[in-house]
Amino acid sequence: MGILAVGSVALDTIRTPSGYAEEVLGGSATYFSLAASYFTDVSIVAVVGDDFPEKHLAFLQRKGIDTSGLHRVKGKTFRWSGEYTGDMNCAMTLDTQLNVFAEFSPHIRPEHRRKELLFLGNIDPDLQRTVLEQMEHPNLVACDTMNYWINNTREALRKMLSLVDLVIINDAEARQLADERNLYRAARTILAWGPKTLVVKRGEHGAVMVRPRSVFCIPAYPLEEVVDPTGAGDSFAGGLMGYLSASGKTDEPTLRRSLVFGSVMASFNVAEFGPRRLGELTFTEIESRYREFEKLAEFTKL
Amino acid sequence: MGILAVGSVALDTIRTPSGYAEEVLGGSATYFSLAASYFTDVSIVAVVGDDFPEKHLAFLQRKGIDTSGLHRVKGKTFRWSGEYTGDMNCAMTLDTQLNVFAEFSPHIRPEHRRKELLFLGNIDPDLQRTVLEQMEHPNLVACDTMNYWINNTREALRKMLSLVDLVIINDAEARQLADERNLYRAARTILAWGPKTLVVKRGEHGAVMVRPRSVFCIPAYPLEEVVDPTGAGDSFAGGLMGYLSASGKTDEPTLRRSLVFGSVMASFNVAEFGPRRLGELTFTEIESRYREFEKLAEFTKL
Repeated sequence: MGILAVGSVALDTIRTPSGYAEEVLGGSATYFSLAASYFTDVSIVAVVGDDFPEKHLAFLQRKGIDTSGLHRVKGKTFRWSGEYTGDMNCAMTLDTQLNVFAEFSPHIRPEHRRKELLFLGNIDPDLQRTVLEQMEHPNLVACDTMNYWINNTREALRKMLSLVDLVIINDAEARQLADERNLYRAARTILAWGPKTLVVKRGEHGAVMVRPRSVFCIPAYPLEEVVDPTGAGDSFAGGLMGYLSASGKTDEPTLRRSLVFGSVMASFNVAEFGPRRLGELTFTEIESRYREFEKLAEFTKL
Repeated sequence: MGILAVGSVALDTIRTPSGYAEEVLGGSATYFSLAASYFTDVSIVAVVGDDFPEKHLAFLQRKGIDTSGLHRVKGKTFRWSGEYTGDMNCAMTLDTQLNVFAEFSPHIRPEHRRKELLFLGNIDPDLQRTVLEQMEHPNLVACDTMNYWINNTREALRKMLSLVDLVIINDAEARQLADERNLYRAARTILAWGPKTLVVKRGEHGAVMVRPRSVFCIPAYPLEEVVDPTGAGDSFAGGLMGYLSASGKTDEPTLRRSLVFGSVMASFNVAEFGPRRLGELTFTEIESRYREFEKLAEFTKL
C-alpha cells in the first residue's frame, strides 16, 4: 500500500495581496505528500541541497512522510519566487533557480518500486518515464505537467502520457496540450493518447474529471479569502491520490470522492502561506469540509 | 400566475467560430421568454420598430408568449452586432444601434401589473425601477444588469437593487458592482444592499447562488461545441424564473432546482445560432437534460 511521489522540494518566496513569505518550504512533492499523508503512507523522491533546513525535513517526517528517497546533495536547493496579483488563479514567476534540481535523475530505491500508486509530479517527461520504468507493477500511475514541458518536450510528453492512467493538469494546460480551445474536445484528444482518466484543475472554478463515458464536475470551496494559492494543484492531487490509496479502489464512485477530497485539501492549503495549514489539519476537519462540499452541489432529483 | 419580463427585443448579427448569422431574432426579453415559456405563462414588455419582421412576432406567439406588451413604434428595431472569438465567454460588441429602444419608457398594462413574478432585464436601472413601481405586489422581483449601467448609473442601480429579491448577473459584473475581486466577498456586499439571493452566471464554469446562509454551485453542461453563446444568460434566467413560477415556491430546494433548469435552458440555447434551438424544445428533452445534470455533480456522501 501507499504512494510514491516524485517531484520537487523547494524553497519558495511568495508575494500575494495578503502578504509576503520568504524561503518557505515548497515544491510539488512537498504539497502532494502533506495532503496525501492524511490518508495513506506516502514516500517522496526528490532532491535538496546541503542548505536545506533540517526543520523542514523534520516537519515532513513528523507528518509521517517517508523521506528516505529525498536525496541531499552538495549545492543549493531549488528556489522559486512568484507573485499573485488580481485573479489568484495564476502565479507570475519572478525567479526560478533550479540549482541541484537541474541534475536530478531519480533512482528509485528497491522498497519504493513496489508501491501501488505512483504520482509523477511536474518534472521533465523523460525523467517521469525513467521513474515509471523502474516501478514493478503499480496499480495506478498519475502525472502532472506544465506549459514549459508542453512547449518544449511535446513528443516526450505524449510518449509519457500514453503510459499513465490518470492525468491531473490545469485547464489552460489541457487545452494547450491538445491544441484545442474547447475543454471537452481537448479531453477527448488527451484520452485518446492512452490515459483512462483526465482530471482538470480549474482553480476557483473547481475541477472536472473526464472519462470516456462520464464527466464529473466539482466546484471549488467558496472562500472569501485566498491567502496563497501556491501548491493548490499539488495538494489537490495529494488528497485525490491519498484517498484512492486508502480506499484501494479506482471505480467511478471512488474517483468522484477522490476529487472531493482533493478539493478539500486544496481549500485548506490556500488559506495560509506555504504548506502551513496542510501541516496542522485533523481528519475531523477534513471530513467536516467534505460534508460542506456535499451541501454545496446538492439539489433534489426530478 | 406567470411572469412579466421587461427587456429588449432586437435583431442580432453574430459571428462566432462556428459561423455567421445576420439579423436574427435576439434581445433579452426574447431569450428570457422563450426559455420561460416551457414552464409558465410569460408576458413581455419591450419595443420594436415598424421594420420588425412579422414572422418573429408570430414565432413568439406560437410559443405561447403574450406579446400584448410588445410595443411597435415608428422607426427601426434595436440592432446589436457582436463577435465571439477564442474563449466563448465574452462577446466583442461590433455595433449597437439603439433605434426605437432609445426612447423606451415601459408603460405596464393593467392586466400585467398583477403578475406574480417580475423579471427586469438589462435596461437602464431607472427604467427598471419605473416598471417595478407600476406592479401591484409581485411575489418575486429579479433583475439583471451589465457593466454599462454599473459604470454609468451606479447610484440608480444600487437604489434599484435594494428593491429586488433576486439579482442574476455574471461573474465579472458581480465583482465590478461590489468593487471586490473575491466573488464571495462581492456577493456579501451585494446581499447587504437588500437582495435576498444573488445568482452569478459564470459561462462555461456554470453558476453560483449565494444567499446569507448558503452557497450552491452548479456546473455548466459539458458541451463539445458552443455554436453561439448569445442569449445564454437570458435563457438561463428564463429557465430559472420559469421553474420558480411553475413551482410557486422560492425556498432553498426550489431555488436550487431553478438554477439547474436555468443551466439546462442555457445549454440548449448555445447549441445553435440565435434562439432557434430554444424554439423547438420538448419538455421531455428538458427533463432528460436535468437528469444529466444530476449525474454531473453527484458523489456519494461520507
